[in-house]
Amino acid sequence: MRSYSIALIPGDGIGIDVIKEGKKVLDTLCSLDGGIKMDYRTFDWGCEYYLKTGRMMSETGLDELKDVDSIYLGAVGYPGVPDHVSLWGLLLPIRRKFEQYINLRPVKLLRGIQSPLAGRTAEHLDFTVIRENNEGEYSSIGGRMYEGTEMDLAIQSAVFTKHGVERVLRYAYSMANKIGKPKRLTAATKSNGINHTMPFWDEYVRKINLEYPEVETEITHIDALAAFFVTKPDVFDVVVASNLFGDILTDLGAAIVGGMGIAPSANINPDRKFPSMFEPVHGSAPDIAGKGIANPTAAIWCAGMMLEHLGEHALANILMEALQQVLEEGRMVTPDLGGTATTVQFGEEVCGKIKRLG
Amino acid sequence: MRSYSIALIPGDGIGIDVIKEGKKVLDTLCSLDGGIKMDYRTFDWGCEYYLKTGRMMSETGLDELKDVDSIYLGAVGYPGVPDHVSLWGLLLPIRRKFEQYINLRPVKLLRGIQSPLAGRTAEHLDFTVIRENNEGEYSSIGGRMYEGTEMDLAIQSAVFTKHGVERVLRYAYSMANKIGKPKRLTAATKSNGINHTMPFWDEYVRKINLEYPEVETEITHIDALAAFFVTKPDVFDVVVASNLFGDILTDLGAAIVGGMGIAPSANINPDRKFPSMFEPVHGSAPDIAGKGIANPTAAIWCAGMMLEHLGEHALANILMEALQQVLEEGRMVTPDLGGTATTVQFGEEVCGKIKRLG
Ligand SMILES: CC(C)[C@H](C(=O)O)[C@@H](O)C(=O)O
Ligand SMILES: CC(C)[C@H](C(=O)O)[C@@H](O)C(=O)O
Repeated sequence: MRSYSIALIPGDGIGIDVIKEGKKVLDTLCSLDGGIKMDYRTFDWGCEYYLKTGRMMSETGLDELKDVDSIYLGAVGYPGVPDHVSLWGLLLPIRRKFEQYINLRPVKLLRGIQSPLAGRTAEHLDFTVIRENNEGEYSSIGGRMYEGTEMDLAIQSAVFTKHGVERVLRYAYSMANKIGKPKRLTAATKSNGINHTMPFWDEYVRKINLEYPEVETEITHIDALAAFFVTKPDVFDVVVASNLFGDILTDLGAAIVGGMGIAPSANINPDRKFPSMFEPVHGSAPDIAGKGIANPTAAIWCAGMMLEHLGEHALANILMEALQQVLEEGRMVTPDLGGTATTVQFGEEVCGKIKRLG
Repeated sequence: MRSYSIALIPGDGIGIDVIKEGKKVLDTLCSLDGGIKMDYRTFDWGCEYYLKTGRMMSETGLDELKDVDSIYLGAVGYPGVPDHVSLWGLLLPIRRKFEQYINLRPVKLLRGIQSPLAGRTAEHLDFTVIRENNEGEYSSIGGRMYEGTEMDLAIQSAVFTKHGVERVLRYAYSMANKIGKPKRLTAATKSNGINHTMPFWDEYVRKINLEYPEVETEITHIDALAAFFVTKPDVFDVVVASNLFGDILTDLGAAIVGGMGIAPSANINPDRKFPSMFEPVHGSAPDIAGKGIANPTAAIWCAGMMLEHLGEHALANILMEALQQVLEEGRMVTPDLGGTATTVQFGEEVCGKIKRLG
C-alpha cells in the first residue's frame, strides 16, 4: 500500500467549497487504484478560527504540519480580518518555514477553455512561471515613522540574497533545460528603475546561465513582460520571477488562460526536507463563498500537481485527462465561465469521468 | 502671439525617429493657427552623449531645462549603457527634480486600432492610469553587502510618504470626481503581501476618499488588477497606483489598446512650478532604431497632451482627430500593427490630415 499523509486546510470562503471537490476527486482516484491510501488530517484554520482564538492557526500549527507528505490548501482571507493579518498568520509562514521557495504556476490553456486573447488557442498558451516564494519584496522588513504628523512615512525593504536567488534560478534553469526546444528562459527584472536589488538579480541570472549554457536567456523588464503576456504569450517556455513580480505575472497568466477559477499553484520545497503545499492561485472570494458556484477547476488541478509531486504520475494523468474532458464537453460550466453548473456538479462530473477512464 | 518654449530631447534609438514626426505635427498645427509660436531648443542628450562625455545630460542640464514651458522627450537607452545608468542620469532626475509627481497615462483604444482582447472595442477601453512618479519603489535607497561571499545580498527600500501619497491621490480623486458617471476610482495595492508600505497607502486612499465622498473607491491588489485589465477592462475610469505598480499597469494598458507604439504619457508637475514632460511609454527599441519603421503614434499623441497642458485645447483636438482619422482609414499602417508604412509616411499623413481639418 502506498500511503500518504495529507493536511487539508480548506481555509476561508470558497476555499472550503473547492477543496471539498478536490478531495472527492482524490478519493475517487484512490478507490479506483486500490493500492493507494490517503491519510487526511483536516485543520479548521483560517479567519473564523482567528476570530475565535486570535490566531490564524494553532500555536503548534507548523509543528503539526511538518511531517505530512503534502498540504492541500483552499484559500485564506475574510472581510473584517485585515489581509496582512490573515496571510502573515498562515499562508506566508508555511511558505517560509517549510522553505517552499519555489512557487510553480502553469500558464496553460486547457482544452475547452476560451482565452480572452483574440485568436489564441492551446498551442500558443503553454508555459510555466517559477516564482521565488520566500524572500524579495515580501520581506516584512520595514515600518512607519512620524505617524500622525506631516512627515508620516513608511518604508519597506526588499531583500534579495545569493542563497535565495541562486536556488530559484537553478530550479528554473534546470526545468528550462529539460523541456522545450529551443530551451528558453525569461527572467523578469526591473533593473532600469529599481537600481540595487534588480541588477543583483540580473547578475545572478547571467551567472546561473553559465551552468546551463544551452538555455537561451532573455532578461525582460516586468512592465514589458506583462505586456508580452498579452501580445506574444507564445514566446514563453519558462519564466522566472521574484516574489512580487511572479505574483503579478501569475494572476495575469491566469487571466489569459481563462481566469482565476482555473489557475493552480504548487509551493514546493525541492529538497523534500519539508512538505510542499498545493493551492489555487485564487483567493477566498467572500462575495461568492458558500453559494456553491465557485469553479473547483483550480483546486482539482492542484490535486493533480500534488499527485505528481508524490510520484503518482499515472493518477495525475488520469485526473488531468478527466478534467480536460469535462471542460471540453462543456456540459458542466461554472458561472465564472458563463454557465450554471454548481461547484459540486462540476466536481462530480470529474469524478464520473475518472471512473470511466480508470 | 502665444509663444511657448519647448525643450526637445529626442534621446536614443527610435526616440529620435518619432520625435521628428511629433515636431512636424506641431509645426503644421502652428502654421495653420498663425497666432502661436513654438520656440524649440534641441538637446542631444542620451547614451551617445554619455559615451562621449560620461554624462547622460550636460552638467547644468536641469538648469537649462527649468524655465521652458514643456519638455518633449523621445526615449533613452542603448545597448552597452546599463539601464540604471541611462535612466538615473536623465529620465528619472527630470521627473524628480521638476516634481513631476503625476505620470498620466491614458489607456484608450483609438478608432481604427484593434485590441488583442477578443470582442473589445473602443467603448470598453477608455480609462486613465495615474502613476505616482517620484517616490515609492524607485527610491534608489539601498545597497549590497558581502559581495563575493556566500552571504552576498542586496536590499532596496520602497519609501512612501504622506506628502508623496496624498498629492497623487488628490490628483487622481479630483480627476475621478470630474469625469465619469458613476465617479469611480481604483487604487492598486498589495497590502496582503507587502505589509508596511502598502497598508500605509491604503490608509491614505481611505483618508483622501473622505474629501471626495462621491467617488466610489475600490482598493484592488495589483495581481488581481493586472488580471482585470484583461478580463474586465470596461470597469475602470481612473486607476491610481504607486510608481512600480503604475509602471507595470501602463505597459499592460498599452498592450490591451494596441501596443507600445501607441501609448503616450505625461509627467506632470501640477503646481506648474517646473516644466512638465511628455514622452511615449515605449523605450528606445534599439533593434528597430534608425530603420524608419517605428510607430510615431505615441509621440504624436504626446504632442497632443502637451498642447492640452499648455492650454491649447483647440489645437490638441485637431491633432487627435487627425491622428484618429489616419488610423481609422488604415492607408498608413506601421509594421508594429501589421502594415508597411514608414515612420515618416505616417507622420506626413497626419500632417496632411491636419491641413484638411484646419
Ligand atoms: C525606463 C524606465 C525607468 C521607466 C520607468 O519604469 O519609469 C519606463 O519603463 C517608463 O514607464 O517610463
Ligand atoms: C494572498 C497573497 C499574500 C498571495 C501572494 O501574493 O503571494 C496570493 O496573491 C498568491 O498569489 O498566492
